[in-house]
Amino acid sequence: MNKKLLIILLLLVTALYTHAQNKIVVFQSDFGLKDGAVSAMKGVAMGVSPDLKLFDLTHEIPAYNIWEASYRLYQTVAYWPAGTVFVSVVDPGVGTARKSVVLKTNTGQFIVTPDNGTLTLVAEALGIAEIREIDEAVNRRQGSEGSYTFHGRDVYSYTAARLAAGVITFEQVGPVLPKQVVKIPYQKAVFEAGKLKGTIDVLDVQYGNLWTNISNNLLKKLNLKFGDYLHFIIFKNDKKVYEGDTPYTETFGEVPLGKPLAYLNSLMQLSFALNQGSFADVYKISSGSEWSVVVNKR
Amino acid sequence: MNKKLLIILLLLVTALYTHAQNKIVVFQSDFGLKDGAVSAMKGVAMGVSPDLKLFDLTHEIPAYNIWEASYRLYQTVAYWPAGTVFVSVVDPGVGTARKSVVLKTNTGQFIVTPDNGTLTLVAEALGIAEIREIDEAVNRRQGSEGSYTFHGRDVYSYTAARLAAGVITFEQVGPVLPKQVVKIPYQKAVFEAGKLKGTIDVLDVQYGNLWTNISNNLLKKLNLKFGDYLHFIIFKNDKKVYEGDTPYTETFGEVPLGKPLAYLNSLMQLSFALNQGSFADVYKISSGSEWSVVVNKR
Amino acid sequence: MNKKLLIILLLLVTALYTHAQNKIVVFQSDFGLKDGAVSAMKGVAMGVSPDLKLFDLTHEIPAYNIWEASYRLYQTVAYWPAGTVFVSVVDPGVGTARKSVVLKTNTGQFIVTPDNGTLTLVAEALGIAEIREIDEAVNRRQGSEGSYTFHGRDVYSYTAARLAAGVITFEQVGPVLPKQVVKIPYQKAVFEAGKLKGTIDVLDVQYGNLWTNISNNLLKKLNLKFGDYLHFIIFKNDKKVYEGDTPYTETFGEVPLGKPLAYLNSLMQLSFALNQGSFADVYKISSGSEWSVVVNKR
Repeated sequence: MNKKLLIILLLLVTALYTHAQNKIVVFQSDFGLKDGAVSAMKGVAMGVSPDLKLFDLTHEIPAYNIWEASYRLYQTVAYWPAGTVFVSVVDPGVGTARKSVVLKTNTGQFIVTPDNGTLTLVAEALGIAEIREIDEAVNRRQGSEGSYTFHGRDVYSYTAARLAAGVITFEQVGPVLPKQVVKIPYQKAVFEAGKLKGTIDVLDVQYGNLWTNISNNLLKKLNLKFGDYLHFIIFKNDKKVYEGDTPYTETFGEVPLGKPLAYLNSLMQLSFALNQGSFADVYKISSGSEWSVVVNKR
Repeated sequence: MNKKLLIILLLLVTALYTHAQNKIVVFQSDFGLKDGAVSAMKGVAMGVSPDLKLFDLTHEIPAYNIWEASYRLYQTVAYWPAGTVFVSVVDPGVGTARKSVVLKTNTGQFIVTPDNGTLTLVAEALGIAEIREIDEAVNRRQGSEGSYTFHGRDVYSYTAARLAAGVITFEQVGPVLPKQVVKIPYQKAVFEAGKLKGTIDVLDVQYGNLWTNISNNLLKKLNLKFGDYLHFIIFKNDKKVYEGDTPYTETFGEVPLGKPLAYLNSLMQLSFALNQGSFADVYKISSGSEWSVVVNKR
Repeated sequence: MNKKLLIILLLLVTALYTHAQNKIVVFQSDFGLKDGAVSAMKGVAMGVSPDLKLFDLTHEIPAYNIWEASYRLYQTVAYWPAGTVFVSVVDPGVGTARKSVVLKTNTGQFIVTPDNGTLTLVAEALGIAEIREIDEAVNRRQGSEGSYTFHGRDVYSYTAARLAAGVITFEQVGPVLPKQVVKIPYQKAVFEAGKLKGTIDVLDVQYGNLWTNISNNLLKKLNLKFGDYLHFIIFKNDKKVYEGDTPYTETFGEVPLGKPLAYLNSLMQLSFALNQGSFADVYKISSGSEWSVVVNKR
């Protein structure tokens, strides 16, 4: 078997292999799914390369809610393989001075987004391997120069697709920036004087459960066993909104219907729920950097 | 042309063919699309194999509504090719004693789900070729042992992805079980003393139409022609909620706007609608095992 | 290297190339995402060819709203590569005499739809290269003949999948029709006596912004600079609903929170918004062929 042939076969095998590579783009926005905006972003990406595989994180981020955009990335990015490129477009300051960036996490995923607080939690959790500013002189869809308001489609989706498809390298995104991002202030999870403090990061919206940023590891400071009772107080800014007791349970079925329980959510963080009810609706609790909780063992 | 070369070429062709195989996973849940839970499930699947093709059935099953989960599978599974792997996660008893199973239908699709009633209708309609309990000692995402509440991601999606990608065989899912599933009781469609009885299985939610489980075949007992009138009574448990007459029509356009009609839906089952209106909203009708209908020819 | 071998290698390369082709189908409907209807359409498509790549435009078109179906296509189709096949199923007259057609635009995309007004805007904007009526004698899923109401799945999705996968040519769709489509009447954008007139095509639903059909090019008649003020009046049919002044701005951040502004949307058309508020909700404005606007420079 001659050498030229072998080389051609190897190239074919390489082509197959390349074809089978992870060319994944995952989209997040506050656009909703009722109009064509998400589909236009995906059309632009498929125009870059029909080999890309496109997915959604969510497009139901409440309008302009950067905290929640940050949280949904934090909740999801690590479950996708290294090399996955995320696009997040929640951008109340579109057209203003915020930078358009691509962050590479220490675990190898990329996030294409305005640097407006969206990267707060994922930068803390996964670390910043490198961050680059998008050079819009080259990384912008041809013919889109006149459009001021649609960076999501013409810059972010376009750049993410070109990066994921290997049309450009990470270096070709644009100049490297210092390893820091714009951050939203919030109460970090701490253990002080026998009590845990933290933020109600987010609601498990479908069920109305309250998810805090208090990790399983920090919770160990209370030396809890399943069945033990917790005392907890919920504040909005400095105002008390709820105070009560609840068992710490392994499964929802351990308390009667409609009764509160504390449990570890899928991210292994302390959470509060009503068994087959909505804690958020019944007690008017919401989430975000303004909502905090103080917890101790009863 | 020498033999080694031929073998290499055949392997390449096989690789192409294998690459082109049906590696489809279809997800259903009551998670909604507002948070990252669905995306995390898909990320885990793409981590198993980037060649998988991931789709959604729906993630808008009303929270904990096992009847509707069962119905949506029944409505959809048969339209997908043999070999498709469905994941259904509607699981009010997560963490309790219900089994985690994979059912293979007689038509060749797989369903990965808690065995909590979700399989009621699809098992009846498509039959059980084989059913196996998921052995979580092996079929569970590495590093997820501490997470009690997220079987959807760490067990169901992970197992479905490995099965669809050929990483494990159906046998490697776990031990075979008797061919029976947990069933939700409901009124089956019957013809008695000149009248048809059945269940209002589900609403065609977008339009508010009422879909019953009375098939076209059973309907033939009434010897209807298009244009004939039906008399029908709707009950919630034993209480009458609606009584009226309606023509049996081939198309919605045959009755005035807002007027009732009876028709065959896309599953060839007797259904009731208002032309460009919502029967469910106007007459406060819902669906599920509690809602039944009695029908006769006028 | 002998010739037979070269031919085989070329065939393999061709197979790879073909495999990498754009086999994209994009779905739109008023079915919503709560039931299995969209998934059943996709299952039928994947049964035609597992190599297809399936996407959604939106399934949240308000029930039976043909104007909005038309607008969403107009907003999106041009961003997808030539060869993409769209399926649009918003069909209040299902089963009546409207034709089922496939339109090929001058930019090379295909649209599979009932010809009921859905093609109004996209036919104007992108032009009609050719239009063919679907011959349901051949282009209909086997075994579906008894189903009167589900053209979306059994005819439209099935035909789109076969066309996108190359199972049939465009010619095999059915007989060619005259280059005209059923059109919904509406106020076209015009400049008369120093004023611009146009339609409020659609709401940017997530934010409540008002999108008109007045293009950037037509807007130039007013000789506007950013910062100039516009006077505008909104009518429903002939009744005045809103009258006011607003600056013409490059970015949302240039006006105080809750204040109105005029801007160019992502389609380069004149639009009205409140900075971080909903113009539609606050002033009870909707959209469609009944809603018009008159604008002049103040």
